[in-house]
Amino acid sequence: MHVAIPLYPRFTALDAVGPYTVFAFAPGWQVTFVAAEPGPVTDDAGRLTLHAVAGYADLPRPDVVVVPGGPGTVEALGDRALLDWITGASRHARWTTSVCSGSFLLGAAGLLDGRRATTHWGWLDQLTTFGAVPVSERIVHDGDVVTAAGVSAGIDMALFLLGTAVDDRTAQAVQLAMEYDPQPPYRCGSPATAPAGLAETALSLIK
Amino acid sequence: MHVAIPLYPRFTALDAVGPYTVFAFAPGWQVTFVAAEPGPVTDDAGRLTLHAVAGYADLPRPDVVVVPGGPGTVEALGDRALLDWITGASRHARWTTSVCSGSFLLGAAGLLDGRRATTHWGWLDQLTTFGAVPVSERIVHDGDVVTAAGVSAGIDMALFLLGTAVDDRTAQAVQLAMEYDPQPPYRCGSPATAPAGLAETALSLIK
Repeated sequence: MHVAIPLYPRFTALDAVGPYTVFAFAPGWQVTFVAAEPGPVTDDAGRLTLHAVAGYADLPRPDVVVVPGGPGTVEALGDRALLDWITGASRHARWTTSVCSGSFLLGAAGLLDGRRATTHWGWLDQLTTFGAVPVSERIVHDGDVVTAAGVSAGIDMALFLLGTAVDDRTAQAVQLAMEYDPQPPYRCGSPATAPAGLAETALSLIK
Repeated sequence: MHVAIPLYPRFTALDAVGPYTVFAFAPGWQVTFVAAEPGPVTDDAGRLTLHAVAGYADLPRPDVVVVPGGPGTVEALGDRALLDWITGASRHARWTTSVCSGSFLLGAAGLLDGRRATTHWGWLDQLTTFGAVPVSERIVHDGDVVTAAGVSAGIDMALFLLGTAVDDRTAQAVQLAMEYDPQPPYRCGSPATAPAGLAETALSLIK
């Protein structure tokens, strides 16, 4: 299976690298970072630069597309090359997926109309702009479109996809290889469990 | 606070990018990827290239050091420039830390003698080579040296460090901003919970 992860300026690093790491551990799977042109792309904090090794034209038919989110999605909503590539790739891909605000790019590419979808808790309601039905779940699977919640949710989504595409045993082996036995220091990773007022503080951290 | 993350060939991407993302969300914190010389460094799967933006000489006194692991640690054990930088930086840093097999580099830099430490479950016992006391915990804090278990454990460690250095509220806001409310699809992320025989399969996935 060939997974393509498009990069655009001001993506959030973990949105891309979480799923990447899961798929990179999977035997026989290949992951390629793509962009309009091969070259460096810098993240939202301006401190991490990842290399796209292929252009969109080089990889029109990946098996899986994972679109990361980040503050850069706002500008990327007007990036026709990116949106056209997502639309075209989705016609052949087994799954077209997103992490965090990457779902807005799936929406702009015309993939969410009438579908159940999720995104970061901070702007879940805005998915209706694209005709989607917002769902407050960690992973939302609607046919060949799979959307994940904010940032770290891409790890859970990638393991789920791997287990579905291959088998539970393979996904379990990857989960163990990456020692994904999370022990967050706080119970506040979703607005449902966070203390009062934390949501406003958290949103202020997103550049 | 200034966090330095050294990169070396064949590091594991999530070891570095997990903690990076946590610290990049923290207000007033800065994270810099360093290497012997600034430039691109490629990961263990050969598909992800991150840019080191500074050389070791440019950043001799970071506040926090996070050494990622990966199959490349074996060769990096002989990388004097890297080890000398870790040793020197540790003299002034508030914390010198590692993720996964990055702890072996702390050991080779002389930091683990007589200390409690952890690493990936697959080679925990080998920490005794450096005079360390292996501890099977997700995060092990021994004075100014903090070691984390395999790959994904760096996210938990970074949130713990942030909460200790600033306050719980700040770390909680970052945890919520990155929607770190993990829901792994399986309960098998440590050997203690994994089904029989999975450990061998998992280790075979590590290149």
